[in-house]
Formats: sequence, structure tokens, C-alpha cells
Amino acid sequence: MAPSLELYEKATQSLPVKPNVTNTHGVPAVTDFEFESSDKHDRVLKVFRAFIADLCQQFNGGHPGSAMGMAAIGIALYKYVMKYSPSNCEYFNRDRFVLSNGHACLWQYLFMHLVGVKSMTIDQLKSYHSEKTDSLCPGHPEIENEGVEVTTGPLGQGVANAVGLAMATKNLAATYNKPGFELVNNMTWCMIGDACLQEGVGLEAVSLAGHWKLNNLCIIYDNNSITCDGTADVANTEDINAKMRATGWNVLEILDGNSNVAAIANALVTARSSDRPTFINIRTTIGFGSVKAGDAKTHGAALGVDDVANIKKTFGLSPEEHFSIPRDVYDFFSDVVERGKTHEADWASTLQKYSEQHPELAAEFKLRVEGKMPADWTKIIPSKDQLPTEPTATRKSAGIVGNPLGEKMRNFLVGTADLTPSCNVAYNQKVDFQSPELRTACNLNGDYSGRYIHYGIREHAMAAISNGLAAFRKGTYLPITSSFFMFYLYAAPAVRMAALQGLQQIHIATHDSIGTGEDGPTHQPIALPALYRAMPNTLYIRPADSEEVAGAFIAAINATETPTIISLSRQTLTQYPQHSSREGVAKGAYVFVEDDAFDVTLIGVGSELGYAMQTRDLLQSEHGIHARVVSFPCQRLFEQQSREYKHSVLKPRAGKPTVVIEAYAANGWERYADASFSMRRFGKSLPSKAAYDYFGYKPSRMAPIIKDLVEEVRRDGIEVLRGDFRDLNGPLGVGFEH
Amino acid sequence: MAPSLELYEKATQSLPVKPNVTNTHGVPAVTDFEFESSDKHDRVLKVFRAFIADLCQQFNGGHPGSAMGMAAIGIALYKYVMKYSPSNCEYFNRDRFVLSNGHACLWQYLFMHLVGVKSMTIDQLKSYHSEKTDSLCPGHPEIENEGVEVTTGPLGQGVANAVGLAMATKNLAATYNKPGFELVNNMTWCMIGDACLQEGVGLEAVSLAGHWKLNNLCIIYDNNSITCDGTADVANTEDINAKMRATGWNVLEILDGNSNVAAIANALVTARSSDRPTFINIRTTIGFGSVKAGDAKTHGAALGVDDVANIKKTFGLSPEEHFSIPRDVYDFFSDVVERGKTHEADWASTLQKYSEQHPELAAEFKLRVEGKMPADWTKIIPSKDQLPTEPTATRKSAGIVGNPLGEKMRNFLVGTADLTPSCNVAYNQKVDFQSPELRTACNLNGDYSGRYIHYGIREHAMAAISNGLAAFRKGTYLPITSSFFMFYLYAAPAVRMAALQGLQQIHIATHDSIGTGEDGPTHQPIALPALYRAMPNTLYIRPADSEEVAGAFIAAINATETPTIISLSRQTLTQYPQHSSREGVAKGAYVFVEDDAFDVTLIGVGSELGYAMQTRDLLQSEHGIHARVVSFPCQRLFEQQSREYKHSVLKPRAGKPTVVIEAYAANGWERYADASFSMRRFGKSLPSKAAYDYFGYKPSRMAPIIKDLVEEVRRDGIEVLRGDFRDLNGPLGVGFEH
Repeated sequence: MAPSLELYEKATQSLPVKPNVTNTHGVPAVTDFEFESSDKHDRVLKVFRAFIADLCQQFNGGHPGSAMGMAAIGIALYKYVMKYSPSNCEYFNRDRFVLSNGHACLWQYLFMHLVGVKSMTIDQLKSYHSEKTDSLCPGHPEIENEGVEVTTGPLGQGVANAVGLAMATKNLAATYNKPGFELVNNMTWCMIGDACLQEGVGLEAVSLAGHWKLNNLCIIYDNNSITCDGTADVANTEDINAKMRATGWNVLEILDGNSNVAAIANALVTARSSDRPTFINIRTTIGFGSVKAGDAKTHGAALGVDDVANIKKTFGLSPEEHFSIPRDVYDFFSDVVERGKTHEADWASTLQKYSEQHPELAAEFKLRVEGKMPADWTKIIPSKDQLPTEPTATRKSAGIVGNPLGEKMRNFLVGTADLTPSCNVAYNQKVDFQSPELRTACNLNGDYSGRYIHYGIREHAMAAISNGLAAFRKGTYLPITSSFFMFYLYAAPAVRMAALQGLQQIHIATHDSIGTGEDGPTHQPIALPALYRAMPNTLYIRPADSEEVAGAFIAAINATETPTIISLSRQTLTQYPQHSSREGVAKGAYVFVEDDAFDVTLIGVGSELGYAMQTRDLLQSEHGIHARVVSFPCQRLFEQQSREYKHSVLKPRAGKPTVVIEAYAANGWERYADASFSMRRFGKSLPSKAAYDYFGYKPSRMAPIIKDLVEEVRRDGIEVLRGDFRDLNGPLGVGFEH
Repeated sequence: MAPSLELYEKATQSLPVKPNVTNTHGVPAVTDFEFESSDKHDRVLKVFRAFIADLCQQFNGGHPGSAMGMAAIGIALYKYVMKYSPSNCEYFNRDRFVLSNGHACLWQYLFMHLVGVKSMTIDQLKSYHSEKTDSLCPGHPEIENEGVEVTTGPLGQGVANAVGLAMATKNLAATYNKPGFELVNNMTWCMIGDACLQEGVGLEAVSLAGHWKLNNLCIIYDNNSITCDGTADVANTEDINAKMRATGWNVLEILDGNSNVAAIANALVTARSSDRPTFINIRTTIGFGSVKAGDAKTHGAALGVDDVANIKKTFGLSPEEHFSIPRDVYDFFSDVVERGKTHEADWASTLQKYSEQHPELAAEFKLRVEGKMPADWTKIIPSKDQLPTEPTATRKSAGIVGNPLGEKMRNFLVGTADLTPSCNVAYNQKVDFQSPELRTACNLNGDYSGRYIHYGIREHAMAAISNGLAAFRKGTYLPITSSFFMFYLYAAPAVRMAALQGLQQIHIATHDSIGTGEDGPTHQPIALPALYRAMPNTLYIRPADSEEVAGAFIAAINATETPTIISLSRQTLTQYPQHSSREGVAKGAYVFVEDDAFDVTLIGVGSELGYAMQTRDLLQSEHGIHARVVSFPCQRLFEQQSREYKHSVLKPRAGKPTVVIEAYAANGWERYADASFSMRRFGKSLPSKAAYDYFGYKPSRMAPIIKDLVEEVRRDGIEVLRGDFRDLNGPLGVGFEH
């Protein structure tokens, strides 16, 4: 009982019959659906759209427009095409679905309800925009809630997450699938609106998906041509289909996306058999059914009582009935739960047989499905006596500590934003993650089982794709990224999304501080640590030597629901095997050198710890002043310690001043110190040591200043420092200081 | 004596003879150059490349590869095509040149030397990577130095800057040019490498340039196909020409970019007569001349003594001679200075005649050339009695205060990342900045004289383009941007570049804090203020009511070399006309309510100031505790005040505790307060008031906690708070706290 395929045919007319090398398109697949009648589709569409209008009207807010416009797409996905199980949203081999236009979340919530996701009750739906604090229907989808793969909202992120999810499938399949056993073969569907491919992070991600030929990825573009400012034309008139083709995507187009469910479903199925990722451009009408249909006014506000009533009248529904879902609409979706259970059972049976034939692989696979590390990783971390004692850059130490993990742990996906030679994350015998097709086409090493990822110069997508990798199933992958620390400002919106979602990842951020040197102020971070130290659920760790680097990796791996940034030096640093301690790193800060007769506590951080140590020596030898030294690699870990421990490290009640030495903005150190040698302006292009000199990081300069401070406190008491944090490098200033 | 145009012809063969609507290409222009002989070009290329190799070898570092590869492009630009004046790099109507691949800066420095920019001596060139602290040759180009239009380095930024520079020309031309008077008609040339169009910000920017049909913009793509990780193919295999065409660009291709100067020059000239922006894809060889030519090893490291010697031998130069530029090479460029002076004189003469015929416009134009505001803007700011007294969202107040400026000040270019209805920056009778062609094609209002900019959903490019607008000439434009505060994390790398360059701009950042409400944690900033408060040369101002909004605008306009973020509420806020003060905002913080018998000082910030005021009342009425209140809209402005003023506001020596109330991470407030009601986790999707309640921002909860703190201090002395900052909302924690 298939409906007319006219529109779909029309839409796909432009596809060449034969693929060609420069611009291959998927060939329409034969589908095996028995479509319900257009009348039934029409009925469900009406009830769905009226319900959305009701949900937004109840509290006079929310985003009705796209959710109403995308109704037919939802039927095609949730009723016909998507492989999932409403009674077990966590079924491992399910298709992943990402709503990158997260403001349209009601669309997803309502379809989840209709297909039988038990937690998604009518009451839950009605809690959208309510004061209910345990609502499953927040204003954007949140990963904590059943059936949501990733938290979305900031536009463009979801596209990159979807690329990561599709990569995870490819890598798992290449690693574990065997002839006759398709253990992992799910699709990733990503719904987007007009914004996600305006955002740079989305554009970076689609370039990579095209490059990697991720044919298990499909972007469904809700092309309603409306954004908040009105017609999308006001800021965007490019030929998106041509652009996506140029980027290596298969492109399909649906002209009637408001009602032609069958055309949409067929296009979606076509995506499953494409040789590259598929972009389906579907024309819809925002706020379909409303008198304001096609207008930006339906995007981010309720439609109004009269309009909602009118919509129902037009649809042949009763304007007096609210939140009404008639029996026949539930019946329409009634087969989905059973179909889902069949998917689950089939997969369980496959896994069972696989376990018999491939017991070792199966054991490892099951561990990863459970989110567990596949080996005793602690033994892979070098012990202190295996670490270098000669001056070593911490970026080099990170290679020594981390690369054996990269080599041996199949859950590590190690990537770089085009800085392999600088960031030292390339492990022995690395195999690149690449499409096997590019082996001959571009003479590249690698295939989908590869775990070394060349992200190109795309730091933001690198981190956002990592979020997708980590979200495939928590613990199945531990994504590692690498770049210069400065460019984790480009990546920051995605790192934040990892922290918000509790997604573990490790960012190897080299070339930190002004020690980066000649590349100059554009490459020298000053304020960035303040962001990551303030960011909830994020570890920013600055180890000072190789032993502390080991501690940083251990802390990062143990933080299973937290992203960690390991901040590393370009320049070589003195090693302090007599003092440094991985256990100390785990506590965030620890006493590096004790001195019971101390006059001052010096906090040294990362590559500036050496300055604290040298200044200590000079204070003693030249000025007879006793300094103790605290190494302070991570504020967040320190905050987790007891007050007793904190006081034992910093001794705030001893009446002696505490001075922090770090070549970053002081912001946040005021919690632990009375004074700082810190940066109040941007850096400078000079060789590493010369840059430190230029900004006054010279023990011979710092020691007398500290001596003066000590003497002031001796004279006037520690109270003199209250409310008077000392910027020992000079006052903070506004204005252009170059 | 024109050389063979064979390669250029070959490269442009694919251009259609007639333009067509969907994919118009520029038609090759007839050039009027008398090209020097290929032999002379060849000679200059050899000397140039050897000199670059020497510069990197002297300190065994730097980026030789691209600078050597791009040599022929440089001759085409600096000798033939670019309109500029080496003896006056600031000549107003000069072509703007942006080196987006800033690491290739030696290329620019050396050409500046060769064409006769006086400050760029051989000694300066040799100071590249040296310890010289006043070098004009830092590791990336810096705006402070003669002949550098914008500081570049972080990849992709320069592309967006160039778009802004080209927009500035278009807008000035549309505003001031009159028949017979082409006052402003310069081109913008932007050099890029393989990275800048991988970066999202570059991709966002080129989409906008294509949309706006900025035919005065040309991107020159140094396509050497090599990045740090090796072949660019490792992460990028898209069809960049097709992609740029789809994005609305004219595309030209040069196959021999290593030597065919004439072909390159002709392509550049073609760009001048295009009806859209032009993308010239030029194949070059990285490290041309080196034995490692074509290898990533030539990118970011010196070539080695032997290789440098060998290059010179191959080139017929003496390996013993270093930093050698023979007379004939100087002679080759000897006409450039004079040509530049002619450009200047022509322009001065045009301006003189224009002034006679259009005296009023000319007067305004000259003011803007001098970087001065074109009217007495202070009178446009409403006085306190003109501001609302009923509860008002500060985003609305910002419209009341700022939009009259937007309407009347022709140097204001007011933009939005698709949030016109939310951010309230649309001023009366706004005209959009649009290509006039789109009036009919897309039925859009606007032309190039328009000053309201729809950036689309491209926050990063919005800020980076604003940097270009502001850099056209400092003071000629004051770019305004707008979006939700959260999305200034997307824009942060570009805001940072503004701060680094001393470029004034005002970012209208609405929907700050958890008061944003239902959109939930993805839209509620927590850590972001810590970044902007720590960022050098940046003002982050959170006004509490309409009067403080006026103060924020005044401070932002007065900060002529500083970007300002004005952080505004979505929700309505109580107005405090009896207390609030624009003069107070100028000082960063000020006493809002004094109480000589105070037990505690409460700091209220922005939309949380009302909570401080209510808590003060409750402390007094319920607990008999006296609180004074400080309004603290801007930490950076406060830091500029005298110690006396600071102590008069915060009274740190009075032995009383200070508590800050703000729904952000506490980081940085420890400098001013002993305790905080702040956020230790991400926000929550709840209506605004409910979100505040959920996180404990209730006077009825806060007052007793403050009372306990006051009593503890009474009992144990203020010393009890030393080194023990109190997070009154509970301990900071790591781990996933949702």
C-alpha cells in the first residue's frame, strides 16, 4: 500500500544513474516497508502538531515552530526507518539519533512518548517549561534522560557529536565484526535546522565526515528557511547541496517535507546504502498549521490561545480538548515496541554465537559495552624510576607516559589537530583512522580500525567529535585530543559540553604559558586557565615534571565522568624526582619542600615551579629568608580535599604570606595566595627564557620583592594583606598595553 | 614584454564565457602591466628564498616553508598588483593585506623590506626569533608594527578579519563616494594556507562574504597541500574549488604558483573586476628550493646549515654569503615607492576636490579618517530621569540606551548572530548591510550603506569580522555585536584577538546567568565570566539596572582601545534609581547602600544585585544584622581605581566579612570577598525565578547563612576567614553532578 513516490522521485531525479569518481551519489534503495495510508499519516501529523502547540501554550513559551514543521520527518524515522527499542533505549546496537537543533526537543519527546518509551508520560511532556525540577523534558535534550544520546542546544555541536558517534560505530565494527557477525552496524541520524551548518563547528565536522566517508551517518536538514531574524536568506544564500557534495556527501532532496512520509522514509533508507555520508535536504514549513506558519514568530514563542484553537479547528480536532492523543494515533505506533524487542533479541543472539566462535574478542567487547577499561592500565604507566631525570619538556614526558597507553588500550582514540610532531601523541605502531578507500586514492596509511585520528586544523570539531565518541556508550571509548593549549579556546564550547554531560576525555594541551616563546602573544595563553579552572566538572592539570605528568594521566583516567586538560610545556624543565609525586598530583596540591621555620610559602605551578624552587634558594642564600614550596598542579582536585589537608599544605593560619608564581592571569589564585607574580597583559614573541625574563620571572628580581613582602608582614602583621591582594608584577590595567 | 600566459590561460579555461545566475565567474581582465622578464622574476625569487632560509637558520627555528613557497605570489602582489605606499603604510585608501597564515610572516617582512618600508631594515629582519624586545619581526605579524593590518596567528581569524576589512570599504564607499569621487575603493587581499579554510571561523566568514557579494575581497590560497602532519590529504580531501563556488565565490586556479608571476598577477587583477569575492587557488611547493621541498619538515623548523648552503648553490648564489640582497633585486622593486606616492597624491587631490563639492560629508569623513566619533554622542545617552523605573530586563534597557546611538552614529555597525528579536539591538529606521543585488533576488531590504548586520548563526565569525571592521582604521568604525552571552564562548578566540590588538568593540551579550531560564544548562553561562574577567584589556560589565546600563555604554565607548562585553539579563529586574549610578559603573564598583553600623558587606552583581538588596532587608528585619551593599558591575574598571577608593568601597580592614552574591563560578571574587553564594555546577532548565530558587538564591535561605557567618566572625575574629574562602552554596566538587 505504498503511496505515490512522485515527490521523492522528483527530488532524486538529479541523481546520476552511475556513480562517478568525483561526485558519487547513493542510488535509491528498494525499501521493504508496508507504508500505512497517507490518511493515517495525515491523522497522526495533525494530532502531533496540535499537541506541540498545546505544550507550548500551557506556559506561554517554548519552541513550537520546528517541532511542528518536522512532524512528517519524525514519522518516517520513528515509525519506519530507525532501528531502536523503546523498551530499552540503551540497546547497544541501536541507531543513534542526535537532535542538533535541540530547541526542537518537544518533537523528540513527543515521538518518544508515542512509540512507547515508558518514562516519557503525558505528565512528563506537560512538564516542559514547568517548575518541575525532575522533568524529563528540559528546554533542550539532556543526556541524563532516557533516549537522549547527547545534550544539544548550542548550535552545530550535535552535528559534530553525530560524526563522533558514527566513527565509534565504524571503529567498533572494524575491530570486532567478523564474517557472519555484524556485532555493530548501527546508523547515526542527525537532525539539523538552518543554523547547524552556519556554525563553524558544524562545517568543520561535515568536512571530516566527508573525508572519512562515514556512510553510516545521515544528516537530515529541516530546511524551513526561517531563523530568528526571519528568512534564512538574510544571512545565507549559498547552495548548500553543492557545498555538501563538494565536501564529499551524498545529497538527496525532498520537496514536500510537511506530509510526504513515504518519500522521506525512502530517502532515509537510501542513506543506509550510500558509499558516503548522506545529506537529506527536506523542505518543511515552520509552524505548519498555524496562521503564522512560515514565519519566524513561530520559532521561539507560543502561538497564542486563538491560534492554537484555530489549528485544531483546521485539523478537524476539537479546540476544547488539550493534550489529546486519540487511541488510533497510539495504535499507529503500536508495532514499534515489538520490533525493537526483536532487534534486541537478534543482537543478543548474534553476540551469543559470536562469543562462542571468538571468545577472546567477545570478552573484550563485552567489557567495553559495560564501559570498563580493557586491561590493567595502571601497570602501563611508567614508575618514577623509569622517568627521565635530565631536563625534559612536559610535552615530551606526556609522550613517555601516555603513548604506551595509546598503543595498548583499544578504547583510546588518540587524535590531533594537525600537530603530531609538536604534541607527541603518536604512539608506536599507530594506525590512522581513515577510509580504506583513501589508501589507494590518496596513498594514505590507515583504515577504520585505526585509532590515531588526524582531525586537521579543526580544534573545535576535534573536541565536539570526541564528545560523540565518548557518548556512544560511556566508557567504551576514551577520546584523547591534542593541540596547543591556546587553541583549546577554539575548542572550549565543546569541552564545556563534555563537562556538562559527564563525558570523559583527555586533552593533551601543549605549548602552555609564555614559555611557548617565539610564536608570540597570539599563541601564549594568559586568561584561558581561568576559564577551565572555573568550569564545573573539568580538571585543568599543569604538571611540573615527568612524575607529575604521570600523576596527571592517572588522575585523568580515574576521572571517568570528567574531561581533563593536561597542560604541558614546550620548553625543557628541571626534573625534581626527590620532591615530585604522582600521589601529590591526585590531591591537586602538595608540599614540595617543607621548612618548619618558613617565612613565606611559595606556590609554583607547572612550568613555573622551577622559578619557585630557584627563588626559594635565592631567598635563603641571599636574604636569609625561609621559604617552603607548594606544587599546585590542579585547583579542582585540591578543592576536593578536606579542610585539614588544605590547611596542612597552605598553612594559612601561620601568619605568613603565600605567594603564587605562574605566568597566567592571577584570577582564582586569590583563594590560596596573598600575592602573585602573574600576567596582567598578553605575552610577547621572544625565545622562551627571554619571554620569562621580559615579564620579570627572574629569581633575582622576585626574591627581593618577596623579601619586602615578608618584612612588611613581620612589621605590620598578616592583617595588612587582608583585602589587598598584591599583584607583584604591577597593577592590573585596562587599555592597550602593547 | 609580457611572458607567456599559457599557464594562466590553462588555469582559467574552465571559466564559462558568459556569467550565469547560479555560478557566475569573473571574466579575465586585460592588464596594463609591463611585466619584467621571467629571468628577473627568477632572480628575485632565488634571492628571496635564500634569504628566508638564512633568517630561519640563524637561530635554528621559525617557519621557512610557506614563506619560500609563496615567493612568486609576493612578487605579483607587492611589485605589480597591490595598491599601497611603502613610504606611508597608513595611506587611507590603500589595499588592505591580511596574512591569515601568520606563521609565514617572514614572507611579508621581507617583501616590506624589498619594496622600501623604511622601518623594515635588514637588522629588523634578522631580529626574527631573536631576544630583541622591540623587534618589528615577531613570530606572527602584529598590528602595532608598520604595514601590518591585523595581528594573525590563530588560524582562520585572518580570513574573517579580511571580510570585515572588505565590508568597511563597501560601507564607506556606499556612504561617502559620490559620482566622480571614488574616495574609498580599495581591495582587500587575504593570503591563506591549508588551514584557514579548515577552521570553522574561516568557513563561517567565507559564507558571509559570498552572501554579501564582497567583490572587493580576494583570498589567495597558498595551496602547497602540506600541513604539520604531512599531506593535507590526511584530513582533507574535499573539492575546495567547488565548495567556494557553492558559497558564492569566483574561483580561479593557478597551476604553477612557484614561478609564474605573470599568471598570478593576472589572476589577481581579474579579482578586481569580479562581481563577487574571488578565491585564487594557487599550487605551490612548500620549502621550494630545499632538498626537503614538498615536505612538512620545512614548515615549522629551520632547514639546516647544509640544506641552506645547498639551496644557494642550486640557485647560483654563494653559500658563503648570508643575508645577501644584491643591488639588482632592490632595483627590481625600485618603482614601488614612487608609485605609492602617486596613489597618495591622487587620493589627497580627490579628497580636496570632494571637500569643495561635498563639504559636510567631507568633514564627517575626515573625522572618521582621524578615528573620531562623528557627533556629540554623550547627549544621545538618556539621562537617569529618562530611564524606566518599573521592573525592566537589562537587555531591554540596553535597547533604550544603545539604539539611539545605533540610529545616529554612522560609525556604529550594529550586528547580531540571528537574535534580533532577543537582543534588542535593532535601532529605528535601521537599514541592513546587504548586497543591493539581493533586493530583487531574495526580496531583502538593505544595501552596502546599511549598518545593521545579520551575521547569521555565526558568533565566532561575527566577532572576528568585527575585528576587521575595527582595524580598517582605528576609530573609523565601532562594531557592535549581539548574541546570548553563552555564545560569546564560541566567539571568545576573536574577542581575545580584539583585546590583544586594542580594537574597540561592544558586545551586547544578553541572557546572562541562570536567569536565562528554560533553555537550560546549555544556555546558562557559569564559567564564562571568569574568562572575560581574566582576559587582559577586556571589560566585562554586568549592569544591574537601566542606569547601570547607561554607565556600561559610556564606559564601553570611552574604552577606545578595548573590547567591552555588556552582560545583560533576559528577565526583568527591579530598578534602583535611588541607588544606582552611571558614575559608579565607571569605577567598576561603588557603595550602593551604606550603613555605618554594618556587620557585613554584601556584593551584588548584575541581575543578582536585587538578591543582595532583598537579603539586606531580611538580615535587618529578621536578624537585626546590618548589611551594606556594594554594586560591582566590572572588576577590571575597579582594579584601575586607587587603593583608597577600593578600600572605601569594600572596607576590608573593618574586621567584617564580605559576601558576594552572583550566579556564576566564584573564581576571581576571592580577591574582594570572603565568601560567596556562587555556582559550583552547571545550571538547570527551569523558569528564571525557579532556577534561582533551585540553586539557593533565596533571601530567606541566604540571610540565616550570612547571619551564621557574621556570628562566627564576631566570636572568632575576622582571622578565622583567612585562607578559608567560604562557598556558601556548598563545596566545589569534581565529578558529574547532574
